[in-house]
Amino acid sequence: MKKKIAIIGSTGSIGTQTIDIVREHIEHFEVVGLAAGTNLEILEAQIREVKPRIVSVANIQLAKELKERIKDIQQPIEIVYGIDGLNAVATIDEADVVVTAVVGIMGLLPTINAIKKGKKIALANKETLVAAGSLVMNLAKQYQAEIIPVDSEHSAIFQCLQGESVKSVESIILTASGGSFRGKKKEELKGVTVTQALNHPNWSMGAKITIDSATLMNKGLEVIEAHWLFGIPYDKIKVVVHPESIIHSMVEFEDTSIIAQLGLPNMRIPIQYALAYPKRIINRQPKLDLTKISKLNFENPDIETFQCLQIAYEAGRIGGTAPVVMNAANEVAVQLFLQERIEFLEIEHIIKEMLSRHSVIQHPSLEQIIDVDDWTRKQILTGGE
Amino acid sequence: MKKKIAIIGSTGSIGTQTIDIVREHIEHFEVVGLAAGTNLEILEAQIREVKPRIVSVANIQLAKELKERIKDIQQPIEIVYGIDGLNAVATIDEADVVVTAVVGIMGLLPTINAIKKGKKIALANKETLVAAGSLVMNLAKQYQAEIIPVDSEHSAIFQCLQGESVKSVESIILTASGGSFRGKKKEELKGVTVTQALNHPNWSMGAKITIDSATLMNKGLEVIEAHWLFGIPYDKIKVVVHPESIIHSMVEFEDTSIIAQLGLPNMRIPIQYALAYPKRIINRQPKLDLTKISKLNFENPDIETFQCLQIAYEAGRIGGTAPVVMNAANEVAVQLFLQERIEFLEIEHIIKEMLSRHSVIQHPSLEQIIDVDDWTRKQILTGGE
Repeated sequence: MKKKIAIIGSTGSIGTQTIDIVREHIEHFEVVGLAAGTNLEILEAQIREVKPRIVSVANIQLAKELKERIKDIQQPIEIVYGIDGLNAVATIDEADVVVTAVVGIMGLLPTINAIKKGKKIALANKETLVAAGSLVMNLAKQYQAEIIPVDSEHSAIFQCLQGESVKSVESIILTASGGSFRGKKKEELKGVTVTQALNHPNWSMGAKITIDSATLMNKGLEVIEAHWLFGIPYDKIKVVVHPESIIHSMVEFEDTSIIAQLGLPNMRIPIQYALAYPKRIINRQPKLDLTKISKLNFENPDIETFQCLQIAYEAGRIGGTAPVVMNAANEVAVQLFLQERIEFLEIEHIIKEMLSRHSVIQHPSLEQIIDVDDWTRKQILTGGE
Repeated sequence: MKKKIAIIGSTGSIGTQTIDIVREHIEHFEVVGLAAGTNLEILEAQIREVKPRIVSVANIQLAKELKERIKDIQQPIEIVYGIDGLNAVATIDEADVVVTAVVGIMGLLPTINAIKKGKKIALANKETLVAAGSLVMNLAKQYQAEIIPVDSEHSAIFQCLQGESVKSVESIILTASGGSFRGKKKEELKGVTVTQALNHPNWSMGAKITIDSATLMNKGLEVIEAHWLFGIPYDKIKVVVHPESIIHSMVEFEDTSIIAQLGLPNMRIPIQYALAYPKRIINRQPKLDLTKISKLNFENPDIETFQCLQIAYEAGRIGGTAPVVMNAANEVAVQLFLQERIEFLEIEHIIKEMLSRHSVIQHPSLEQIIDVDDWTRKQILTGGE
């Protein structure tokens, strides 16, 4: 039987790669739902290819336009829109796996709704665990919804933990490429340009995550995600800089043995793993040949220069809404940097400033999380009024 | 409940480290049987420490001497000897796990007898699988005896396969340190001394295995063992030279993902893993810090210079008694080299010569295996008469 897949965020990087994988493995997978934002061009092509049962777009105008575009398709396709549309796609009865690849806090609600339907979640939305880790993991337990991480680092850890007991884990070792500015000191980071920051050595990713990689906030977000996903305390989550991005992450066990997952830096591998889990299926992507890579390097992160990593550990340890503020502040600050409205080094200052202004709410509800996220963004954009 | 252990070859390197592990984990393990050869000094100390139910030595004279040495011990300890003694220790009812750490073809029979009693085998005797892989694996299946490898490479693969399906394996990647002469060319190997050959960069091991490491025959033997242990065809077993010996081996899956096991070069880790399996327990040995190691290197083995690896692949593919001849010829040739009676490069010539003289028997019985082993040794030592 084919596995039926709903994709929340189908026209983005993870979404389109998910469709690529389905195309290559038509004997294993079938797409039943697509949710996109505003990119009707790509969405229409995806609809024509996979013929889903339901499709969601950002708003009613786009829904009408899409209906017009695909009116020649015989098969009935339900077109929905907005947050209700996202939720409808995330919860359709037919889906076995829901890929949550929409970026931002908007991904949180559909992910939660999919969990409440007991769906298997291929999780690619960072905010789900960074902002609402406690809430989401409790719901996943309650509704017996499996969460399979799509992020390459968490997929690596998830793979390393197969057949092992989390109780035997001594530490989780997240590897970091070090980003565009690895090796640079604080004074060298003054006045760096957006183009310089976007020049990532290994991974081809969106602008936001590439900047997060340069500030090390990406690793900070991943530390918080790993904490919730695997139930590991922050003291047992380590970060090692590994510039080649070949070892995607590692698990150290209490017998000092370390299990690592390796591969070329290629998101197709972890996406496919999440879709096919608990099986593995053939992947025709290029294979890793360690003799060609020849050397793997490891060093400690420079936490003096790149303070976002420590900020994330601190926010994670404080818990409650602290990571919500941190994440929202970071998102806005990165946008401001990309728009050349602030300096690179101001990103960490803005995050610190917002954390200091916020009164943390422990055990926040979903509404409180969304409110705090909204408050943070407005505070920065309106200059704190 | 404590796991009860019998150790075949208790005074050797693996045997004494097994006792060290038991000492550190007295809450988990108990030694019920010890089999040694001639080293009464160490054996007596072990008996006084662990108080086994049964002890075996090489011959009747040693048995008498041992009885005299330990006559002050109140607790009844059965003393046995010879091959019957080995078998008695390997098959005692009380043992849950039998550690087969005796070196050479002598280890084969007690291992088979332990398998026939359905014991869990912590396998450290190479000959068991190199010489009798087909026979042994069939018996293990028939008697439902689990075989847990102790060799660091096979332990690594075994760990990487936890929670995975062997059907999804694309290849097994055995890592090799490259031994004492890595990087040297054929002409540079002429006239190398025993001392040079024994100077292994990472592992502190016995003389035989250190020479095998220098010729790459050690990796060849491991290729054959891996073939039988994991049921993987030779085409899917690769060897990569990794001078730091930190990645102990890897498994590549059909989705291109690679799982690796890492650790400091320390036999305590795989021995303890085999004893504790399927659990992991705390190990107080030094931990691996990749930022201290800093670099991991990888290169292809130089199969022109070090021909033993290819010889082993060929003997493995021929099957039947070919690996028996190869193993016995290698063992004798290494002894001759250690006694400075032959040159280093003659080792591979002797093995090739013996393989060419032998008419392979497919599906050999245990008796035929022992006969062929014996024939090979005599052929070399008597110059082929």
